Order: sequence, then C-alpha cells, then structure tokens
Amino acid sequence: MLIETIARLRPVDKSIVPQVVDHLNRLTKPPGSLGQLESLAVNLATVTGEPFPRVSPPGVLVFAADHGVAAEGVSAFPQSVTAQMVANFVAGGAAINVFAQGIGARLEVIDVGVAEALPADGVVNEKVRLGTANFTERDAMSAGEAERAIEAGIRAAERAVDAGCRCLVVGEMGIANTTTSSALLAVLTGKPVASLTGQGTGIAEERLAHKRTVIERAIAARAPAPDNPLEVLAKLGGLEIAAMVGAYLGGAARRVPLLVDGFIATTAALLACRLSPAVRDYLIFGHRSREPGHAHALAALGAHPLLDLELRLGEGTGAALAFPLLEAASRMLADMATFEAAGVDTGESD
Amino acid sequence: MLIETIARLRPVDKSIVPQVVDHLNRLTKPPGSLGQLESLAVNLATVTGEPFPRVSPPGVLVFAADHGVAAEGVSAFPQSVTAQMVANFVAGGAAINVFAQGIGARLEVIDVGVAEALPADGVVNEKVRLGTANFTERDAMSAGEAERAIEAGIRAAERAVDAGCRCLVVGEMGIANTTTSSALLAVLTGKPVASLTGQGTGIAEERLAHKRTVIERAIAARAPAPDNPLEVLAKLGGLEIAAMVGAYLGGAARRVPLLVDGFIATTAALLACRLSPAVRDYLIFGHRSREPGHAHALAALGAHPLLDLELRLGEGTGAALAFPLLEAASRMLADMATFEAAGVDTGESD
Repeated sequence: MLIETIARLRPVDKSIVPQVVDHLNRLTKPPGSLGQLESLAVNLATVTGEPFPRVSPPGVLVFAADHGVAAEGVSAFPQSVTAQMVANFVAGGAAINVFAQGIGARLEVIDVGVAEALPADGVVNEKVRLGTANFTERDAMSAGEAERAIEAGIRAAERAVDAGCRCLVVGEMGIANTTTSSALLAVLTGKPVASLTGQGTGIAEERLAHKRTVIERAIAARAPAPDNPLEVLAKLGGLEIAAMVGAYLGGAARRVPLLVDGFIATTAALLACRLSPAVRDYLIFGHRSREPGHAHALAALGAHPLLDLELRLGEGTGAALAFPLLEAASRMLADMATFEAAGVDTGESD
Repeated sequence: MLIETIARLRPVDKSIVPQVVDHLNRLTKPPGSLGQLESLAVNLATVTGEPFPRVSPPGVLVFAADHGVAAEGVSAFPQSVTAQMVANFVAGGAAINVFAQGIGARLEVIDVGVAEALPADGVVNEKVRLGTANFTERDAMSAGEAERAIEAGIRAAERAVDAGCRCLVVGEMGIANTTTSSALLAVLTGKPVASLTGQGTGIAEERLAHKRTVIERAIAARAPAPDNPLEVLAKLGGLEIAAMVGAYLGGAARRVPLLVDGFIATTAALLACRLSPAVRDYLIFGHRSREPGHAHALAALGAHPLLDLELRLGEGTGAALAFPLLEAASRMLADMATFEAAGVDTGESD
C-alpha cells in the first residue's frame, strides 16, 4: 500500500500558474497587493489542479501514540497524559477541538500506538503496538510496524478525502514526541542535537540538558542510516509520526493541500519528502513554532510558514489557526470582481 | 461630540488580568503553549472587561474620501477610482467584501468626502466636502471640517456597536492616501519623509521620487505643529483618516477591541492615541504591511502585529484576515476544558 501510494503520487500541476496569475491581476486590487495570499492561491491551484480551488471543509487528523523514551524522564508530563488527552479529544475539550470546530472541520482521532487500551467510541483503532520501545535501549519498532503505522495514516487521509474534505490538517499527541522528533531531525539533517532540542511542553533547563544527552546516546546506539527514511523511523519512532508521514503521502496522492503544523508535524513532513520528493509541493506550512528545532526542519524543506505566534502546543493547532487564510485565498479567487466587471479603471502598471 | 467621546474614554481593565491568566493556566495545554493567542485573550478581556470576551460578530467600517494631492500624480491610479471602488464595495466585489463575508461581519461603507456625488444605496452619506484640497497649495481642510469627519467616524463606530458588533475592523479607500499618511507620519514622528514613503498601490521608482518631493514641499509649506494632532490632520488630511480616528475613539469609548489594518489605519491610530492616549490599549494590530512607512508607524505605537503576509491593499483587508485569530482566542477561553474537568494530569511546571 505504501509503495502503491508513492507510485500514484504525481507532481503538482504547474501548467495552471499563468491562468491563475492572470486572473489574480484582473481582480479589483493593485496587482500583487494581497502578497502571500496571492502566492497561496497559486499554490492551492497547482495542488488541486483547479483554477478556482476550494479548501472547505477541511479535515483534521490527530494521530496519537506513546514513546518508550518517556521512561527516561524527558517530558514535563507523565506518559499517562497521552491517553488522557485522547479522552479529552473525544470529549471535545482540547485546543484542537475548539479550533477545528471554528473552521468547520471534520475531526478524526486515530490511535496508532497509545500505551494503554482506549475506549472504542470516538477513536479510530489502528493501534500497531502499545507504544514504541525505549530507543535508548533498542529499536523503537520494527520496519514492518513502521510501515503499518504509515499505512494507517494513508487510510486516514483517504477516509477524510472520501468524506469530502478538501484540505488536511495533520496533528499529533504523544508524550515525549519532541524528543523523538529532535532525534529524527538530527539524523535526517546532520545538525547537532543541541541546536534541535528544546523545552517541548515546558521542561526546566536541567531536564533539557538530560534530554539532549538521552538523544545523543540513543542516536549513537541505534545509528540509523540517514538516507534510509524507513530505517530512521523504525529505529527512533514514533508510531504517530509514521502515521503522519502516511497522511501526507496519502493526501498528496489524492491532490489535497496539506497544512503542516509545528515541530513534530514538520519533521514528519520531511520524512515524507525523503520517501517521495513530489510531496513537497503539496505542503503548506501553517506556523513557525517556538520549539527551536522547528526552524531547522523548516529550513530543510525551504518552507516559510504563514503564522508566527510563538505556539508550541501541537495537536495540529497552529495549522488549524492558519486555515482561514487558505479559505480567504480561495474566496479571493472565486468571489472578487475583476476591474472590467466592476468598471474600475486600472493603474499605470497595466 | 469629540470632546465628550474623549471624556467618556476609560483605560482598559487591567484588574481582570490575574483571573484570565489563572484560567488560561488551567486549560488542557502546557502553560503558555498557545503563545500570542494567550496574550491576545488577555487583551480582549482587558478591553471588554469580561473574563470570557466575545468578538463576534465583527463590524467592518470602510471610510472613503478623496485627496486633493492626487492632482500631483502621486498614485498609480486616477482619482476616479475612489468612487468606482465605493461602487465595487456596494456591489460586493472588492477584497474587503469577500473577507468581511468570510468572518460574518457587518460591513458599512461611509462616504466622508469622495470627490463626486455617489448613489445613496448602500453608502452612508457623511460627506464633509468633495475631497480635501491639494495640501501642496493650501490646507487640506479646515479644523471644523476635520472635526466633522472625526465625528462621522464616532457615529459609525456607535452604529456598529449598537447593531451588536463586538469588535471593529476599520478600513479605508482613497486614492493618494498613502501620500497623505506619509506626510502625517513624518510630522507626527519627526522621521525623514524618504524613510516613510513607499510605492503605495504600486508606482514606479521615478514617480516615487516625485511623491517624496511633493510630501517634503507640502510639509514645509503647511508647517503644522507636530504636537497638535487636529491641526496636523486639518492641514494635511484626509477626511477618511479623520473618520478612522473617530472610529477608534468611538469604539474605545464603547470598550470594543479595535483591529487595526495597515499603513493608513495605523497612522490614523497614532493620531487617535495622540488625541487620547487611553486608546492605545484598545488597539490590536492585524498585520505588518509591505509599505515601508508602516514599520515606523507600528514602532511609534510599540505595536506587534499578528500577521506578516506582505499585504499592501488597505480597505481593512489585513485586519479582517487577522480576525479569525481573535475569534480563536475567544473560543479558547470559553470552550477548552480545564485539566481538572478533563481528568488530565498536570505537568511539572504546576
């Protein structure tokens, strides 16, 4: 299924650009005066292949899993919080619920590896295993498990698109997953662990130093081949990050814009692009996180996010907050009058 | 009416801050992890005096007027475009129409000084005069006219609040109004004209040099007293800028958050704060414009905008695009579960 999805993935349709740019320049505004909203509109057109792309309703996918490395005391929160937050998602009380409702999104929560059994109601059960192993001691998971988690992500993206979603926000929940993401990014980019490791949910300086040591030790012990994204993912984890990789691949194969959240989501996006470089042009970056590794992950993808609000929550929240800009770009193309239709004189630049 | 409005204006309610911060820290997210959205929520509470502030529906006020200085050839568009764009606002085809509809706003277009008669339908007629005079030759308007335009803005803000609007987006249309704004800002801040003058709707380099010369000549000829905001406004204009000043004063007196747009809107906001410094804390800055003078206007107000999308359109568009962030901040406070209610363990920082 992974191989098939990658085989189905096509580059975005750049042949549509002149038509969209021409239309943008006919709309009643000085040419280019809507700045990044205009480039966003062009991107949405190339992704969907439509001159008047639509992005509503969006689909929000929140993948949840646990990380064995949480046992090393790298997070401000105990591992039990992963399952508790999944229950909060189901009850509708988390930030992502509130923001998803605000944008009229279909929200789905997918358990790909929470370390305890969860109630069936309101959670899609795609549990691959009860959390990853502690990657300081052994591989986080097998290559087969990583592939199964990726496929769970592909299925989630396909369900959302089949249900009518025209844009995907991909989020996550997993205590200790900034530790995993920093480790992944250090291997994928070759940058020093210290520059890629931050306070996550809010650990103190002392614990941050410990977190860095844990990551450095684990990378030395696991030694994944940096040019083998599946091996990197299997050796370091996590299950929800693998599923996010799958959601990006599956969404790109279905030609919907993929709105990337913060540090963990961008790390997963980098892995997806290593598996299939054509994914890159389907990605729209929602925000710049306060987590220091995010700048490096963005740079590795040549990405310039829409928002910079010092968020560091995850769950897909920063991407959901950026969604109204995509909706506005779409409405600008479809609903604004042209100079000709409105009887407005054009300026000297025409 | 201006004097009365200023007398009614009270400082925002900072006594509410500890209560709101305490609530934010109980919500199911790491403390502070929603970054600027959390400070925005605190701001909305201090402005409204409510621990759970609401911002919907917003009201969009677009003030239109002409500028005599357009005769100097400082814009890429002919003066006739002001009236044509007002007709476009009425027909629903402009960018601000599209974005206002996207946020469920009440939109009102107010003619405070378009240089020609306009159809009555869909435009509030508060015309003070048929455009300002060319300020290179004489004062743009009299002090009495400036005050009447300000009062038209106060009335517009009051109509919106009376109609149920809980947040105001203040926009404008007026060919040559970046020229007027650059002149105003040069006088108000003492900064050199060259650093405050940009390409507006998109003039070429040669015309930009001419625009700078026109502004420098006009300031020397008019020589308004920088510490007298009403005199500065009367001598340089414009009518719609005066009305925006009034809308800020009127909105602040009614304790609604005021979402400031780009270069012209921020210049008007600076004038409002010079008339009544208590206005400052009612202002929320929507975006950083590509017009170079905007950075100076923002700095003069110590302002950090929410968005940075290289917009340079005006009409209130950048503020309208930022509105969903205010709505999200409001929903975050009202709709997220607390750690206690959701049964989620708190982290080490608690």
